[in-house]
Amino acid sequence: MKKPRFPRVALIGIGLINSSLARVLRREKLAGEIVACARRQETLETALKLKLCDSVTTDPAAAVKDADLVVLGTPISAYGEIAKAVGPALKPGAIVTDVGSVKQAVIRDVSPHIPAGVHFVPGHPVAGTEHSGPAAGFAELFHDRWCILTPTAETDPHALAAVTAMWKAAGMRVVTMDAEHHDLVLAITSHLPHLIAYTVVGTATDLEETLESEVIKFSAGGFRDFTRIAASDPVMWRDIFLNNREAVLEMLQRFSEDLTALQRAIRWGEGQKLEDLFTRTRAVRRSIIEAKQA
Amino acid sequence: MKKPRFPRVALIGIGLINSSLARVLRREKLAGEIVACARRQETLETALKLKLCDSVTTDPAAAVKDADLVVLGTPISAYGEIAKAVGPALKPGAIVTDVGSVKQAVIRDVSPHIPAGVHFVPGHPVAGTEHSGPAAGFAELFHDRWCILTPTAETDPHALAAVTAMWKAAGMRVVTMDAEHHDLVLAITSHLPHLIAYTVVGTATDLEETLESEVIKFSAGGFRDFTRIAASDPVMWRDIFLNNREAVLEMLQRFSEDLTALQRAIRWGEGQKLEDLFTRTRAVRRSIIEAKQA
Repeated sequence: MKKPRFPRVALIGIGLINSSLARVLRREKLAGEIVACARRQETLETALKLKLCDSVTTDPAAAVKDADLVVLGTPISAYGEIAKAVGPALKPGAIVTDVGSVKQAVIRDVSPHIPAGVHFVPGHPVAGTEHSGPAAGFAELFHDRWCILTPTAETDPHALAAVTAMWKAAGMRVVTMDAEHHDLVLAITSHLPHLIAYTVVGTATDLEETLESEVIKFSAGGFRDFTRIAASDPVMWRDIFLNNREAVLEMLQRFSEDLTALQRAIRWGEGQKLEDLFTRTRAVRRSIIEAKQA
Repeated sequence: MKKPRFPRVALIGIGLINSSLARVLRREKLAGEIVACARRQETLETALKLKLCDSVTTDPAAAVKDADLVVLGTPISAYGEIAKAVGPALKPGAIVTDVGSVKQAVIRDVSPHIPAGVHFVPGHPVAGTEHSGPAAGFAELFHDRWCILTPTAETDPHALAAVTAMWKAAGMRVVTMDAEHHDLVLAITSHLPHLIAYTVVGTATDLEETLESEVIKFSAGGFRDFTRIAASDPVMWRDIFLNNREAVLEMLQRFSEDLTALQRAIRWGEGQKLEDLFTRTRAVRRSIIEAKQA
């Protein structure tokens, strides 16, 4: 039997993304042994029951011992502490990567704890659903989606190639990008839409009680899509906003200006302005369909 | 053979909603003869080719002649003029209904032109997709969705019952509501989400060109859902905003305040505030799933 690419893999956090990755590693026979690490015993028991891993631990340092590949998949506010804890336990030659939705803050928090001879490859598989936890994962989650890797000047090319190959095996299209640029692109494609969806749904829940129940009832007209987005993991998203603050605030500022202009057009009955924008945005959808991301 | 409920139906406008209704009328054998009216000859030819109607005309007054049921399904800015044109041609005892997303403005524009002995039942089947035109329609569009009828003090109970029965035959759950209340509920569940989606997609298209192409590429993270909403019919939505101005501006004001509060929380790193809101909004999704509107 062929030796697996990674004899021992440590998954730190076993939520939607890492549990989906575990399923891919199994399917593709890329891992010899998988150890899952999480804070809650209940999560680990679910992971074991689903056969996503061979062993479990609540101790990150124990998890990474002898691991060839370590994948950080917790909310990113925990990365710094985890990196500090696992740093001394990492095996020379090991590859550390992550799945966080923000990259500059991750590099800032993790890099200082990576010892010489260990390779850090910051990464972001752009995939997900509004569900969380190990039971919500599935191997096809990554299929045909983009994975953005944001190597630093120090990143080892072989380690980068290994992580690239892993995500390609998951069915992803892999690109590399500067971390700062990644954070800006994701601020508009993901972080701002989530922030707005959270806000709209929050605004609706603050309405008088009778109105609120009707909002649920008649949600089919657009609101429903927002509630799906606004059902995403609260801690993960808290961390994203706190850790991509500058880019999110920049995009939010642009959005607010544009919204104010539309508000003014509605107030003054400027129909042509509205129609022009709505015609322009319709074309964007076509581009996305052509780019096969619909 | 049983006589159909409506021997002659006039569909004024044959876009997504009215063409879907035509398919329902055919399937349920509710109409004897269907005449479709639209401004563009091309639209009418498509409707004929799809066998959605038996005859076509560009003249609304000709369309409603001898009709037992008239369904207004054009952008609502055209309603007033159409009502004025068809008023004198309406048959005594005929029922006029509509499918517009705003109800107070429709009642204001249409009612004055309805002659005595003709029954007006303002209605709104809350269903749709981002596609437009007669070819985009399908009979199942209405299945399990809500239809809101907003009868006025003058609305004839038998006419209300007939329109209710028609939408029930389309698979809808029918409720009646005050027009003002309808406009407020829809402002938050549909109009505000659309306005915001249009704005976000517009903001993204104003980015530098290289960034814009990446926005398309990496749209999977939330933005994609917004582009689908923002691909809805431009003229229809222009009319909705112009004709539900007060309610939309009111909801927009609440939303802007809430967004400013979130912006401030991000700027000052107030993680708990973010997490609290995100936890609250997640529960709304559960309510919608329980209400079977997901």
